[in-house]
Parts: sequence; structure tokens; C-alpha cells
Amino acid sequence: MENHRTEITNDITQSIRNFLDGKKYSQIAVICDENTEEHCLPVILDGLPEHYLLRIDSGEENKHLGTCEQLWMALTDAGFDRKGLVINLGGGVIGDMGGFVASTYKRGMDFLNIPTTLLSQVDASVGGKLGVDFHGFKNHIGLFAEPQNVLIDTCFYATLPQRELRSGFAEVIKHGLIYDKSYWQKVKTIDLDDANWSELVSRSIDIKKEVVKADPFESGLRKILNFGHTIGHAVESYFLDKGDQRLLHGEAIAVGMICEAYLSHKFTGLSIEELDEIVAYLIGIYHPVKIDKSLFDEIIGLTLQDKKNEGGAVQFSLLTGMGACKVNIPIATPDMLDSLFYFNQQLG
Amino acid sequence: MENHRTEITNDITQSIRNFLDGKKYSQIAVICDENTEEHCLPVILDGLPEHYLLRIDSGEENKHLGTCEQLWMALTDAGFDRKGLVINLGGGVIGDMGGFVASTYKRGMDFLNIPTTLLSQVDASVGGKLGVDFHGFKNHIGLFAEPQNVLIDTCFYATLPQRELRSGFAEVIKHGLIYDKSYWQKVKTIDLDDANWSELVSRSIDIKKEVVKADPFESGLRKILNFGHTIGHAVESYFLDKGDQRLLHGEAIAVGMICEAYLSHKFTGLSIEELDEIVAYLIGIYHPVKIDKSLFDEIIGLTLQDKKNEGGAVQFSLLTGMGACKVNIPIATPDMLDSLFYFNQQLG
Repeated sequence: MENHRTEITNDITQSIRNFLDGKKYSQIAVICDENTEEHCLPVILDGLPEHYLLRIDSGEENKHLGTCEQLWMALTDAGFDRKGLVINLGGGVIGDMGGFVASTYKRGMDFLNIPTTLLSQVDASVGGKLGVDFHGFKNHIGLFAEPQNVLIDTCFYATLPQRELRSGFAEVIKHGLIYDKSYWQKVKTIDLDDANWSELVSRSIDIKKEVVKADPFESGLRKILNFGHTIGHAVESYFLDKGDQRLLHGEAIAVGMICEAYLSHKFTGLSIEELDEIVAYLIGIYHPVKIDKSLFDEIIGLTLQDKKNEGGAVQFSLLTGMGACKVNIPIATPDMLDSLFYFNQQLG
Repeated sequence: MENHRTEITNDITQSIRNFLDGKKYSQIAVICDENTEEHCLPVILDGLPEHYLLRIDSGEENKHLGTCEQLWMALTDAGFDRKGLVINLGGGVIGDMGGFVASTYKRGMDFLNIPTTLLSQVDASVGGKLGVDFHGFKNHIGLFAEPQNVLIDTCFYATLPQRELRSGFAEVIKHGLIYDKSYWQKVKTIDLDDANWSELVSRSIDIKKEVVKADPFESGLRKILNFGHTIGHAVESYFLDKGDQRLLHGEAIAVGMICEAYLSHKFTGLSIEELDEIVAYLIGIYHPVKIDKSLFDEIIGLTLQDKKNEGGAVQFSLLTGMGACKVNIPIATPDMLDSLFYFNQQLG
């Protein structure tokens, strides 16, 4: 695990050329969606040799086995062998799904990730978690495998909607909260319209790498990265097919972090002042809306499919203070419900 | 790779108990087909704690993503988490597909293989190749992953049709031909109705383990295991949906070994006497029938999808003598055609 290089660059085409230099790939496929084809492909085109363009429809709702089959078929039709290369040009959906497709095509070919969103750069780019959703369950089918390399250039944010940038920022906030109090102090002061993104992305990636390196297969420490994600994923899953109400990943994680900060206060020693500070900040950035309490049971039901669970109990990763997190805290259903009521209360 | 134990046992229920002893799996699923449910499950039932039985339809034609989806759904419905165990009870199809399903469910749960056929015991049980067929291409989607353990008991052959046993025997023959001349001398003399199977299985597994250990991801030496499989797989694929004409894996590999022994004589120094010896023996055991020459082009077209190919050329593994094999021999289409004509000629 984690043998690949992550390169933060401000010349993405040259970085691609450097990566390919001396390598003998039999064929190259670039996986993109309609957004990255329009906004990101032109930026890297000068660095690409002859290649097949495999375009999929954007969005989490297309992150499923049906899209994988299309991609496997396209690689087959183009005669790809195991010595080909897949370049994933896009956000987390393309990185997770393109990596899964490459890792399982003829039992595995190389892939290069060029994450184009803040979220995918600080989160999906590290850790080797690949996969697709399955009947509404997030990342339910997948595996651990590493790209050959990850090339990161924040120039792609220029065409990223502000809402997407803010969504990715939720993971940056999380990295401070779970691992590095001084980083959290810094993150709090950032103006999203005028941030030094390269510096932030670099620190966030370092934090994630340190954590993943210590526990590549998520048997212990790595689970701290799931702070906010147990309830957050359930909320994200619930609203996935709810049209306009759909939440971006980071927006759902912000809801999850509010609920789980509350549980951290209740069970793992986060002080009331720390809870208030976190919640006020998240509400100020994300302006979440109340969740109708008639939905609580179904949302909590979705946490039962969380991959971290063992033996039927829902396991949480909760804060013990600012920059510190404890894993494997079993939380009973009434307490999860309680945290959702708390969430609604905070919105006044 | 190859960290798991392969245990040859004559008390399979006790071996299962020993394996489970001290392990804390949250739930256990047994994957079987209608044949292994009838003939093999009763044999191991005493060794099994409470478990879910997931039955699929037998046969290579069901080794596809649709069956995987059924299995993933069944695991989901039963509430399996990552700490569950899948036990694959059956031949190569169940081992390859059940292993793939387990390795990709929530990014990977443990699996225990109990191969019940000669073929799956000497072949699929070693080497971590998992996967399913895809639009007619064999094992096109898959990955490398190892079971926790492989438990092998030849008692299951008692209910195995003679034709299945003979099919598996093709891999035993191949192990002698590619790796161990003295083993080949011994294999030649075996009476299929009165063989010491435990001894043969043990030697065949050792050969395969030695080869795989030296080259787990098939970048070099491991490809010797593909002797007979380039044309063999194409023949198997072609007849897959041809009803009564369908060939078992080993029957197709026997055809492939005849063709590829001929190519070995033509290109890599196998003597005419050695060729004649191999071909006469294989015909005597398998009684293959001629392949209509109108099918040759389509069969050869199927070799182009072989996973060993690189850069568009079809790469063969060919014998340089008895017990010795060389990999990465590019063979042009006319020579492949020629070998099929040779095959037909030998049948008189």
C-alpha cells in the first residue's frame, strides 16, 4: 500500500509527460465525464499521447456496476491488454470507479489518477479505496488497490462550482478535527474565495497518508477518518435519489460531523465549548437545513450497512478533543436518534 | 501472496473445525451449487456452525457478473459485515466467483476454499486468480487475492462424474509436461479408476505453488502454467454456448495441449518423438473430436483476448522438451491455423 507517489504540481501536462517517460504502456484510456471533458481535458491534452477517451455521465448516481460494465466493454472493444494504462480524470466518482474498473480488468492494469476536485484531491487520492455503490449502499462493492501515481494540480478548481469546493472543504475541516488541533485553528480562519489551496491540500494529504500508512486496511487507526461519515453517509445515501434535496458528499459529512460531534460530547469527552465551536463553524459554512424527523428511522437504518460495523453494532469514530479521535465506539439507536434531534435544534 | 495454508486432509469436517477454532467470524456463508449441495454439503455439515447457504446454478455459463450481483445482494440482505466468512464449496467456478465476490464485498472479507473437484484442487486452489467471465471472455473481470485457507479432501471425488475427473486430470498432465519430467513419466502410467489421488494432488499443488511463488502476478515464469491454455481457452470459449458440443475445461485444454505441443515442436525444440508421445497419450485419454475447419478463424480470433497478450501479439507458453517450458513466444495467425489442421490430422 501507498507505494505510489502523490505529486503536487503546478504544471500538470509536464507532470504527465514525466510520468509516462520511459514507460511502455501498450494503450492508454482516459476516463472522464462531460464536465472534466469540457473543463479539464483541454488543460492536460498537450501532455497526453494517443489515447482512447471513455466518457461516462457525471454524478454519484452513475457510480454503479452498470457503468463499470460499459467501461470494461469499451476497454475490451479497444483491445486493451494488461499492459495498458487507465488515466482517471475527474472527481471521486471517476477515481473510485475508474480505479475499480482498471484493477479488475483482466485481473488488473495500471491506473494514474488526476483528481480534479478539492474533495478527490484530499480524500479519494490517498488510501487505495476503490469501488462503486450497490443498490443504494455507498462503495459497497470494491477493493483496496493503489494507482501508479496521483498528480494533483489545483488549477482545476478554476472551473469547479463554489458548492463543490465547499463540499471538498469538509474533509479538510475533518483532518484538523481528528488529527491536528493547530491545523484546525488555521482551517477555521480560511476564506474559501482566497485560500492557498496547494498548501492546504498538501497538509491534508500528509495527514491522510500518515493515518493510512499506519493502518492500510482499516483495522484500527484509519477509522478516525470516518468521523462524521457514519451518519453522514447515511444522510447522503438517503437523499441520493431525492432530486433537488440531494446533498453533495461534503454537505452530508458536515451534517454527520455536527451529529457526531454531539455524540463525542456525550460519550468521549469533547467539551461543550468545543462542541459549540465546531457546530457554529459548520453551520456558518454549510447552512444545512433541518431533516424531517419522519425520516430519522430510515436514515438510521442505513447506518447498519456501514462497512465499519462489526457484529451488528454500529461503530463510530468520535472526537475526544480538538485534533484527537477514538475509534470503535458502539452507539445505540436511541443515541443516534438523539443526535439527529440535536442537529435540528441547532438550526433554530 | 500465498500466505495461506493448503491442507490436504482425509477428515474434512475436523479440518473445518480446526480452521474455525479461535476465529471470531461475525457470520458465515457457504456458497454451493445444486451438485455440491447434494453431494458435498452433507459431508462437511458436522464441521459447520450456523451459516447461510447461498446456492447458485452450476456451470461455467453462470460464472458472470449477474450471479455475483445475486451473491452480493444475498450477503447484503443477510447483513454480512467485513468480519464475515465465505466458504466456497465446489469446483473452479465457485472458487473463482465466490472468491471474487468475497474479495469485493465491502472491499473484502475472508474466504475459505473447499475445492471439491480434481480440477479445482490442483488448479484454482493455488495462485489467487479470481474472477468471472464477461461477454464470452473467460475470467475477464477479476483480481488476485488469496483465501485464508484451502482445505482439500479427495473424498469428494466419490460423487464426481468420471468425465469431470478426467477433465481435471489434464492439469495434472500439464504439470508434468511443463515442469517435471519424472512426474510426467509417472502420470502417464496412472489408471484413472485406481489412482492414489492424494499423492498426485499433493505433487501437483507443490508444482503450482513453486511456480506461483516465484512469480505471483504472472509477469514471467508463471506463464508456463498457460501451456495448452491459449488455444485451449479459445476452444473452450467457442463451444461454451454450443449445447451438447460443449467441452469441459480439461477437455478443451487437452485439445490446446495437442496444438501447442505441435507449435512447441515447430518453434521451441520439442522433438518429434516427444510430440508423438504427448499427442498419442492425450488422444488415448480424451478421445477428442475434429473441429470443423470453418470454425478455425473464429477460434483464433478468440485468442486475441487472451490476458497474457501484450501489444497485440498472441503470446504462447511452449515446451522446449519434456518437463521444460518457455514463455512469451509470439505465434502468428497462420501458425495457429496450422496447429488446428495438425490437430484434425492426428484424429485420422
